[in-house]
Amino acid sequence: MGGNTFGDLFRVTTFGESHGKAIGVVIDGCPAGLPIDEFFIQEELDRRKPGQSAIVTQRKESDIVHIQSGVFEGKTTGTPISMVIYNADAKSKDYAHIADKYRPSHADYTYDTKYGHRDYRGGGRSSARETASRVAAGAVAKLLLKQIGVDIKAFVSQVGNIQLPYPSSLIDFGVIEKNPVRCANMDVAGKMEQLIKEVKKQGDTIGGVVTCVIDNCPAGWGEPVFDRLHADLGKAVLSINACKGFEYGSGFNGVEMRGSEHNDIFYNDNGQIRTKTNYSGGIQGGISNGMPIYFRAAFKPVATIIPAQASVDRNGNDTIITGKGRHDPCVVPRAVPIVEAMAALVLTDHWMKSKGQSLF
Amino acid sequence: MGGNTFGDLFRVTTFGESHGKAIGVVIDGCPAGLPIDEFFIQEELDRRKPGQSAIVTQRKESDIVHIQSGVFEGKTTGTPISMVIYNADAKSKDYAHIADKYRPSHADYTYDTKYGHRDYRGGGRSSARETASRVAAGAVAKLLLKQIGVDIKAFVSQVGNIQLPYPSSLIDFGVIEKNPVRCANMDVAGKMEQLIKEVKKQGDTIGGVVTCVIDNCPAGWGEPVFDRLHADLGKAVLSINACKGFEYGSGFNGVEMRGSEHNDIFYNDNGQIRTKTNYSGGIQGGISNGMPIYFRAAFKPVATIIPAQASVDRNGNDTIITGKGRHDPCVVPRAVPIVEAMAALVLTDHWMKSKGQSLF
Amino acid sequence: MGGNTFGDLFRVTTFGESHGKAIGVVIDGCPAGLPIDEFFIQEELDRRKPGQSAIVTQRKESDIVHIQSGVFEGKTTGTPISMVIYNADAKSKDYAHIADKYRPSHADYTYDTKYGHRDYRGGGRSSARETASRVAAGAVAKLLLKQIGVDIKAFVSQVGNIQLPYPSSLIDFGVIEKNPVRCANMDVAGKMEQLIKEVKKQGDTIGGVVTCVIDNCPAGWGEPVFDRLHADLGKAVLSINACKGFEYGSGFNGVEMRGSEHNDIFYNDNGQIRTKTNYSGGIQGGISNGMPIYFRAAFKPVATIIPAQASVDRNGNDTIITGKGRHDPCVVPRAVPIVEAMAALVLTDHWMKSKGQSLF
Amino acid sequence: MGGNTFGDLFRVTTFGESHGKAIGVVIDGCPAGLPIDEFFIQEELDRRKPGQSAIVTQRKESDIVHIQSGVFEGKTTGTPISMVIYNADAKSKDYAHIADKYRPSHADYTYDTKYGHRDYRGGGRSSARETASRVAAGAVAKLLLKQIGVDIKAFVSQVGNIQLPYPSSLIDFGVIEKNPVRCANMDVAGKMEQLIKEVKKQGDTIGGVVTCVIDNCPAGWGEPVFDRLHADLGKAVLSINACKGFEYGSGFNGVEMRGSEHNDIFYNDNGQIRTKTNYSGGIQGGISNGMPIYFRAAFKPVATIIPAQASVDRNGNDTIITGKGRHDPCVVPRAVPIVEAMAALVLTDHWMKSKGQSLF
Repeated sequence: MGGNTFGDLFRVTTFGESHGKAIGVVIDGCPAGLPIDEFFIQEELDRRKPGQSAIVTQRKESDIVHIQSGVFEGKTTGTPISMVIYNADAKSKDYAHIADKYRPSHADYTYDTKYGHRDYRGGGRSSARETASRVAAGAVAKLLLKQIGVDIKAFVSQVGNIQLPYPSSLIDFGVIEKNPVRCANMDVAGKMEQLIKEVKKQGDTIGGVVTCVIDNCPAGWGEPVFDRLHADLGKAVLSINACKGFEYGSGFNGVEMRGSEHNDIFYNDNGQIRTKTNYSGGIQGGISNGMPIYFRAAFKPVATIIPAQASVDRNGNDTIITGKGRHDPCVVPRAVPIVEAMAALVLTDHWMKSKGQSLF
Repeated sequence: MGGNTFGDLFRVTTFGESHGKAIGVVIDGCPAGLPIDEFFIQEELDRRKPGQSAIVTQRKESDIVHIQSGVFEGKTTGTPISMVIYNADAKSKDYAHIADKYRPSHADYTYDTKYGHRDYRGGGRSSARETASRVAAGAVAKLLLKQIGVDIKAFVSQVGNIQLPYPSSLIDFGVIEKNPVRCANMDVAGKMEQLIKEVKKQGDTIGGVVTCVIDNCPAGWGEPVFDRLHADLGKAVLSINACKGFEYGSGFNGVEMRGSEHNDIFYNDNGQIRTKTNYSGGIQGGISNGMPIYFRAAFKPVATIIPAQASVDRNGNDTIITGKGRHDPCVVPRAVPIVEAMAALVLTDHWMKSKGQSLF
Repeated sequence: MGGNTFGDLFRVTTFGESHGKAIGVVIDGCPAGLPIDEFFIQEELDRRKPGQSAIVTQRKESDIVHIQSGVFEGKTTGTPISMVIYNADAKSKDYAHIADKYRPSHADYTYDTKYGHRDYRGGGRSSARETASRVAAGAVAKLLLKQIGVDIKAFVSQVGNIQLPYPSSLIDFGVIEKNPVRCANMDVAGKMEQLIKEVKKQGDTIGGVVTCVIDNCPAGWGEPVFDRLHADLGKAVLSINACKGFEYGSGFNGVEMRGSEHNDIFYNDNGQIRTKTNYSGGIQGGISNGMPIYFRAAFKPVATIIPAQASVDRNGNDTIITGKGRHDPCVVPRAVPIVEAMAALVLTDHWMKSKGQSLF
Repeated sequence: MGGNTFGDLFRVTTFGESHGKAIGVVIDGCPAGLPIDEFFIQEELDRRKPGQSAIVTQRKESDIVHIQSGVFEGKTTGTPISMVIYNADAKSKDYAHIADKYRPSHADYTYDTKYGHRDYRGGGRSSARETASRVAAGAVAKLLLKQIGVDIKAFVSQVGNIQLPYPSSLIDFGVIEKNPVRCANMDVAGKMEQLIKEVKKQGDTIGGVVTCVIDNCPAGWGEPVFDRLHADLGKAVLSINACKGFEYGSGFNGVEMRGSEHNDIFYNDNGQIRTKTNYSGGIQGGISNGMPIYFRAAFKPVATIIPAQASVDRNGNDTIITGKGRHDPCVVPRAVPIVEAMAALVLTDHWMKSKGQSLF
């Protein structure tokens, strides 16, 4: 129980450090008989990998996934699916000069405090490289969800102060993968890209927001009380590196509304019960109601910057942190597939619970 | 695994419906030898109970807690602590007329979809009455945390569009319990109270925000990857009825900042490592860093309002929901102790994990 | 995580001390819509309660179960089912004279070592009285299993050296509840009863074995590797007070057999695959194969005896333990419903997992 | 939750099929700062691997362990420790001819029933090859336990009807690794070896018993009620392939004893409380009492034999299973390190829980 496992029935455990031999994941509990499209899993990883465009880190990792178990003759066997990604340039780097220094707003100090020592190479376990394992597991969850049509798509809805609200007529899900920002509108994407490039030029970084929309989620998924669907989505997303906030449906804006305008009125839509508005974000009482689920995740500016920063070392002495050449100026374009993956893990787990709880 | 259990080592299971015989909680895993101050537990429940002031529901529930097990000669025994609260007016109410109707933005429809039938009396299990059990459990967690000085205090920081930001020189924790809104500033509290009364007069409701600050949390609590301290706090708080959003540290505002201004610079404060700013909200890499932890929770306007609303019944026929006389016009004053309780549960659980993981 | 919770999907948490206010149980995860026969639950408790016959303890506890939540209009709602049993003579007893003494082969010393102090009244939490809560939960599990015909029956197969082997033509399940020993053969039951009475006359106690047979369990329940069906049954049964051993199928006797005689040969029985022998005990590779499941549980002689015994007190001083008047001379007659209850909990949990893991 | 994870705080997940690419394990929750002796881990694996002597299978697997994460500069980091063992001759075998046949007393039929299809090569996930992963994880647990002197040793105490009882003056723990049977007495070992060779010559197999003794376990480990130390040991051991029974302390023999002889009398041994006899097996009320813990595990004869056997195929047609040349005639010599590993996992988990539950 070291915090590296997620989910109850569809249970995912990730392992590996940024510059160790490998990172990877074990999925325990995946239903048997699911056809596994390895190409799709690799595609998902490719959406997250470094070096895709000019506005993400230029680090070189090919992030090739290797399935080691749990799949036979193209289908899942019901036994653990382990997937591994070898770290390409694990040996070449020398991080010794920062081994004793605490980079501002990184996990160096807290890891040292908690564990007594740490793998300081590239952030070790605290590196966002870990999320590649989540994307691989999430791809399997997506394959499961596709079988019943659940559709998860995320996009960048804010970079700095440039926003694309949801819902909005400006949104075109079809363009998300057609711009390097992964924004759902080409014009807004252009402005965001411009801002990221300016920030990068200054050796600085900037934050952003990812919005995720889930269509065709059946009504009835989620548990009451503690394991509400949105609470599990919240935990899942907040566990992604650099995430500082989560809101679903009306979120923080709903605070300023009156109940009389916020309440979603039910109506009968040709035999299907729907709501006229969807401030509930597709979830009521912690359980999906069949309307689109949507939520927003806030990401802070990346902590690694070029300008020198004051800090202390592990002995409490003053020191200076000097910037590295390669880092993400803005994390959200690469966070999009990670957010989707975490949402897929949560939905799959709740789907399985829902089946397990049925009387017959 | 029906979603009614929270925590891994300090494990809390709540039970009971709003108008059943009783609600209650079982805590499994509480360390032995803790002196139990029953008066304190009751005080915490009194902060949450209905009928405290003119701006909360006038329902009558005395919410007296009865400890049934796990405490002997005034101290915990290490065995399960069960606490029960009997429902005072459980039998008198007649909810039959709404048994088949789906109240807008309540859990009626989703419970029916998930479970096939539901205890419709007062919302049954989906009622916020369930949170009384959490407050009782949280009070025990607070007693544990007090032993090492961890101090959790929440306050109302927004009602509608009236805000009290944190951090701010306006904040005075000493006045929180001195005004019915539980705001940390008497002037702002007055404005909030005024707004709530106006909204109430219209039979309407309004949302709000609760901010929680945790002082003296040792560095080193929390797990990397999935069980980050803030992710668990997020899930805990999002699981409270009507909560729509969670952010910690810089939160959604941090999105617009540059890394160079957002990074918290470490310095040596007479032998203790601290940061000059605290946009991290006391948590880095998912682990507490010894600075104050703070977060905000958004609550939507209460769904129960006086004006009639259109809806459907379980057969899909159009119907009208007519308002009840007694409900909370704004949930946040009573949400304050609930937010504190959930934070206490999370911190206690992580404290215990931290001890369990130590090498000796 | 104090060890008081059992099961993953059908999750049972018991609470309460022998002489506290009450004992009870919360079931989280029970499917909704199950008709609850309260009379059946009470009947199961009556099979376990003290004072049923001359060969069990003459203590007076009526053990009336009260359902506090989770059942509405006669059916489960899918929310936690809490049941409580009030302790009738909780206040009258005075156990102060043994508060500091360690009774041989009881849990007094280990509880004091683990917890620092303990509720010494009647053994507190370590009392077998706790198993009443398990029987109540097991009764709900049995109601679930009955819906698909799974039939669990246990009987006393050994007292001291008097045995009734299974399988055997001597076995008549119909007579189990017709003799106070709960043996599946009236002649053998008579001899067992005679032995228990002799032992009792001497103020002594004796051990026994309970055999459990599960018919109509579908093939395919159970998990590979750690959560094998028999491993979970083993843990469940070994967790019952006084249980010292568990074996299934050929068990310890199988050790002396050759593979060529032990292997169960498959054949096609009119379209159903069955085995000619059943040394596997209905479980292969940890998964049920559709044949009867059977196992044996060994119970030691009760530790409470009449003759005085040497011991030490908590200060390490020599002391004498003097016997009490009322205790069970042999635990197995009352253990029969407990063993059945634990088996029912395990099977229900695996049934639910099996459903949760299905692809659709 | 597919049954491939063991433990709560020291949580072990194994993966991999007998003839897939690799098998392995991830440990989540191992305390940081533990020096890792890779040579010791390999030694433990070597005790389990095939081909060690004339009385075990002659299959060729070198079982070299590779640590992929969680260890840095020779010490654990507190992050997941993943270890992998590549399958040497995974590709060369052709098992297609048994793909549709159900070998008697193997898991072929139950896997097909549960999962719909299975990796039939060498038993896939149901192969005892999986236990190599457990031995690797158990070796890490042993390294932890060694830090405080907990000493776990198992030995073969029965093969067929040849027995070596415990406790007994015949036992010499020093000779266990000096004979191929892993018996704790050279004379008895010789007889056991002779029997195994005879059985092997006939192409047959035979069962056996492994006894495990744990010295220097501190008093106070284990939980009351469900997670009793012996119940968790029981589950752990029963989850090993071919295990049919578990007993601790007096076990099934205790059934025939009177309470007056079975009770273990406490005395003060120079300031330490001990018992004169140890029928309790070092555990009372589910919690260790500081005396040696001991238990016995029954293993059935291996199901793979040389003579042809009748069976059915997956279509229900009669078929014949013909024997393979290489298999273990008796499983217990290689089961010894597996039993130790599982015991180590249980003890480590309970040690960590014990620390987590302490008040300070």
